[in-house]
Order: sequence, then structure tokens, then C-alpha cells
Amino acid sequence: MFEFEVKAENNLARAGIFHTPHGDLNTPVFAPVGTQATVKGVTPAQLKEIGATLLLSNTYHLYLRPGDKLISNMGGLHSFMQWPNPILTDSGGYQVFSLSKTRKIDDEGVTFKSHIDGSTHRFNPEISIQIQENLGADIIMAFDECADPNNIEYIQTAMQRTHAWAERSLKAHSRTDQALFGIIQGGVDLKLRVESTRFIASMPFSGIAIGGLSVGETKQEMYNVLETINSHLPVNKPRYLMGVGTPEDLINGIANGIDIFDCVLPTRLARHHSAFSRGGRINMMNAGFATDQNPLDTECDCYTCRTFTRAYLRHLIVAKELLAGTLLSIHNLFALTKLVKEIRKMIIAGNFDENIPNLLDIWGHNARRLNS
Amino acid sequence: MFEFEVKAENNLARAGIFHTPHGDLNTPVFAPVGTQATVKGVTPAQLKEIGATLLLSNTYHLYLRPGDKLISNMGGLHSFMQWPNPILTDSGGYQVFSLSKTRKIDDEGVTFKSHIDGSTHRFNPEISIQIQENLGADIIMAFDECADPNNIEYIQTAMQRTHAWAERSLKAHSRTDQALFGIIQGGVDLKLRVESTRFIASMPFSGIAIGGLSVGETKQEMYNVLETINSHLPVNKPRYLMGVGTPEDLINGIANGIDIFDCVLPTRLARHHSAFSRGGRINMMNAGFATDQNPLDTECDCYTCRTFTRAYLRHLIVAKELLAGTLLSIHNLFALTKLVKEIRKMIIAGNFDENIPNLLDIWGHNARRLNS
Repeated sequence: MFEFEVKAENNLARAGIFHTPHGDLNTPVFAPVGTQATVKGVTPAQLKEIGATLLLSNTYHLYLRPGDKLISNMGGLHSFMQWPNPILTDSGGYQVFSLSKTRKIDDEGVTFKSHIDGSTHRFNPEISIQIQENLGADIIMAFDECADPNNIEYIQTAMQRTHAWAERSLKAHSRTDQALFGIIQGGVDLKLRVESTRFIASMPFSGIAIGGLSVGETKQEMYNVLETINSHLPVNKPRYLMGVGTPEDLINGIANGIDIFDCVLPTRLARHHSAFSRGGRINMMNAGFATDQNPLDTECDCYTCRTFTRAYLRHLIVAKELLAGTLLSIHNLFALTKLVKEIRKMIIAGNFDENIPNLLDIWGHNARRLNS
Repeated sequence: MFEFEVKAENNLARAGIFHTPHGDLNTPVFAPVGTQATVKGVTPAQLKEIGATLLLSNTYHLYLRPGDKLISNMGGLHSFMQWPNPILTDSGGYQVFSLSKTRKIDDEGVTFKSHIDGSTHRFNPEISIQIQENLGADIIMAFDECADPNNIEYIQTAMQRTHAWAERSLKAHSRTDQALFGIIQGGVDLKLRVESTRFIASMPFSGIAIGGLSVGETKQEMYNVLETINSHLPVNKPRYLMGVGTPEDLINGIANGIDIFDCVLPTRLARHHSAFSRGGRINMMNAGFATDQNPLDTECDCYTCRTFTRAYLRHLIVAKELLAGTLLSIHNLFALTKLVKEIRKMIIAGNFDENIPNLLDIWGHNARRLNS
């Protein structure tokens, strides 16, 4: 059910198909994030039009509200949020560490306080897997610990705990219609990363996630980790780089053998008036756009760019209209979805490698402005 | 260009066609409100799917932000907000009286302060018409003064000023592709209302608006005004009841000969978790909906009701998700749009009159709950 086929390779980059109970995923793939069982301000119909295939939703948030048992009683997450295509849930580990103000970690698990009402809860590998089985996503994650990337001792402890929890997660997992991924930790220490990769790769997971990146390290440190661990990763399992999602990180991630990405960035940026475009990121509140009759990105064919001018988008932002966030989210999600699809075509055509400098020039954060 | 054809009558109710430069409007019609050139949280594509035909936008808001000249330079309001179908703008008069904290009214016009930045501005009939010509809506309004319904002396003064301003608005209007409507005032005083109706009806307006209702008077007072003025209204011009939009007011308004309605209510209620339904208005945050697998309204076929459960909608509301407002707005707008379309069919079939008690029973604010 979870066979992963590599259809084409281009140096380290791969174009594949991941078979899931809710349909085949063409990889590489970018997953929009629906933290609370909704991609903020975007309907499932709009997500379908954007071309999204895989969505991510957060175990921590859904456990707290509305509750995983409620979602299970409602027929599972696909039915609850009306997304008929594949869904991925994380383990809740990262949110426990980043959102809960007080938490106590021991080898058995983590006790934390809800960011909503301060109530006390406990996660451990068995509980995380049980919650994810209740939610019913196609792709689920082992419970892991993400450490401060600057604290090497803590990184080592967290990695070893992550390995022990990976074994417990595997044992706890009972649903055969869910692909359980193990998570590699080890911060930006290349030796630890290789050790973690070998450990996780040796276990019978359906896929491999790379956690603990994009959490404060430099981009070069992140790319070094990806390049270094690549040869230790199994070829026949999908590789998921967690929480990564700038256009340049997608390009470099795919170039380093990554198949699956997710990130809140496109929707979060959109709610703060920022848009990906060919030419780099632009702030749509810029006064220079007040009378600009061009679309946000002249070469984009998303609903927002097909329909509205920059002048109108800026007006919505200045007037604090809800539609601004929705229209920019549609654009940003479309931009990443389409970029990844185009890269997939290039991998299959065998010319992704030679196109990387051009893609980075067009989409990079510091790219020169091509269309403004 | 602005011919109004009455296709069928049922007692006082009329089914008509109003020909405008951006297409024929089937009446009766309910116009969603896009105050700042956007129906809050709803895209034009979603409005089209809802079945909306006429949109209202506010002269006062657009004059202040982004400015009517900017919109004119962008090709007019249809192009700016990408609504290819008919648009109606109000005169700005009502907003000057309801939103501006300080205003000075004299016979020539009104000086007021912006609710955005406190800057001083002046509206008079000539300025209001100029702004509305810049915006370029199909249906525009004469500049009027809306008075406190409980102050009979002020009502009389405001009515007389409204009549003088109606004459000036007519003189100032130069675009032949816009239908200019005169506005009847007179509070809930039936004698003044008849006087105002005769005055406005005697002038060469393309349609007749009834202003100054739904501003604090009782529903019965409003219906009395509509019933009383009916015989003084010209048959061959559309009649627009400004700012009115509960289901029961639409039913009773149409029964009293009204052709056009607009109201912020469906979208404002939606942002406050309230939904129209067969059975009466319901608060979707109600804890009883937490595990309710029914759609919001079992007999509704809007996107929201076709797709999502009450449990999911309640979750979005409790989690303070943007999508809640969008999905409830889609439902509430669809409900009113469809109700008016169904009434139109009944008028043509000649059985609207006999269906009124049943319609009020289904849709009234205090209707018994049929589906919960």
C-alpha cells in the first residue's frame, strides 16, 4: 500500500510516486499546512484548484482542540476537514517544545501545559501514535525530540531519546493503512546526523523524516546536513524534510534528494502581506503598488494573479480586509506547488541539475526583481 | 438601457427584469454588500457560485480609501474588484451620518470627519454624484439625509433637504450608462412618507430607493410605510429598500412591492457565528453542535452545507479560524439569494401570496426549529 517508486533521478534529485490509501502522491511534493484541520483562510475547493495534493495537520493542536477522539468519531481527519487526498500528521513533539511554556522531558515522555488553557497533558511515543491513529492521516510520524541546535550535549541526548522513541513508536503503531515515518535528529552536527540516519534507516519505517532543521541554523548548515546524510538514506523510501518551505529551500532540498516538504510560510507570509514572486519575495503593502495594474506575478496563473491587480491587493491589505490573506495565500501556495511540479518535470526530463542556478536566480529571497 | 420590465405580479409583489450595462438583473434581487470593494472573506468566484448577481459597494468608504479617482484610473469599480455583473453604490449619505463622529449639516451639504484618520471632508449632491460617476457602478443613488426616526421635526427637515438634494443630484448626473435612483425619506410618519414618495416619483429617476428604514423602528412600522407608499410608486421603475436583509424582511418587503434589497447582515452575522437556517437563526458556536454530523441546514445546497458538518464549522469557530467566517458567509449569502430566487418563481407561478405564511414559518427569526 505504501510502495514508493523512484521514476527518475537527476544527480541526487528524485521524481517518484508514493502510493497511499487516499491516492498516489507525485514527488517531490509540497504540503500546505492545515494546523487546526484548515489551511488558514483557504477552502478545500480552493486548495484543489491550487493543485495541492498532500496536506499536513498538527497532532498537538488537534489533540487539544477539538480532540482526536472527536475527530475519530466524526470519521477521521479526511472526513472532518473534507480533504479526500493524502494527509500527513506530525507527532506533536515539535509543538510541545516550541509552543508549551513549561514542559518536563524524561526518557518516558513529556509533560506539558496547553498553550490554550494552561491545562497539563502528557505525550509519549505510545500516546502520540494513538492520537495519530485516531486522526487517521495517511502518513504519520514517530514521536521525537527536537533540541536547540546550539547545544551539542542536549542534541546528543535528544537524538538518543528520539531513537528509543522511534522503536517504541514502531511497536505502538497498529494501523496498516498508515505509513509511519521515523525521524532523524542530530542538529547540525554531521557526525550525529550520520549516526541518526543509519539508526533510523535500519528500522522498518515506511519513510524517513529529517527533523530539527530550519530551527535557527544557517541555510548552508542545513544543506550540509542534507548532502552528508544522503548516501546513508535508503533509496526506496520517501524522504521528508520537516517544516521547510522557502522556494530556494525547496530547490536546494530537492537537489539534495528530498521528496516531501511542508511549511506554514506561504500562508503565514500571506497574512503578513508578503508574496513569493519570480524576482523574489515582495511586500504587497508597498505604496508603489497603489496604482499598479499588473498582477502580483506576471507569469503566474493562480486565481489571484489571473484575476486581480497589485493595486487591488494592496487596497485590500491597507483596508485590513480578510480577502487579502486568502488571495495571497492562494498565490503563495500555488507558487510553491507549481515550482515543485515544474522541478519534477525537469527531473524526469533530466535537466533539473543544469536549471538550478536559473531557478535560484528567479525564486531566491535575494533574486533580482524580474517583473517590477 | 435601464428599462425595467414587470414580468409577473402577485398582489403587490412583482417579478421583473432590470436591464443594466453589465447584464440583466432578475428581480426581486438581494445584493451582498462589498463595503470596501470586497464582500468580506468571499472571493468573486465564490460569489458567482453563490448565485449573486448585484453587489453593493459603499461610496463613503471607497472615497476615503483607496479613493474614487484611483478606482476610476484603474478602470472603474467593476474592473478594480473584478465583478463583471451589476454593481450598486449608495450616496455616502447614510455613512456620513452613522460613521463620522462629528458632522455639520447645512442646506448645501455635509462636512464630516473620516472615521479612519479624523481628516475633514465635505459631501454634497454634486460631490456624491461625481464620486459615484468615478466609481462607475450601474446603479447609483441621489445624495440624501437620513434622520433619527424618533425626531419628527428633524425628519421633516431632513426630508425637505433630501428633496432639494434629489433635484441637485439629477442635475449633476452626466453618465448615461448609470441608473440614478431617487431616495424617499420621511421616517415612519406615513403622511411624510407619502409626500416624499410623490415628490421623488414625480422626478425622472431610473428607480426609487426607500431610505431611512431598518434604523431603529419596529418591523411593523417599516411594513406599514411600505404598504402605505405602494400605491404612490410608479409601476415601471424598480424599487429598492436600502439596508434591509433578514429573511422575514425580504419576504415581507417583496410582498409589499420591493424589487431590490441589500444588507451587511448575512456576512456580519457569519463573522459572529450566526447562520440563517430553515427553522430560524442559529448560533454555530453552540456546544450542542460539537459532534453534530449534519450540515448547517439539511435542505441547503450551498458549498458549505454540501461539504462540511456542523461539528467542523463549530470547531473552526472555537479555534478562531478565518475559514469559519468565509464558510458561514457563503451559506448566509446563498440562503438569501436562493430564497429570493424561489420567491421570484412563486410570483411567476402566481402562488407567492399563499406561500407567505409558510415562508415566514420556515425562515422567521422566531421560526420553530425544523432541522435541529
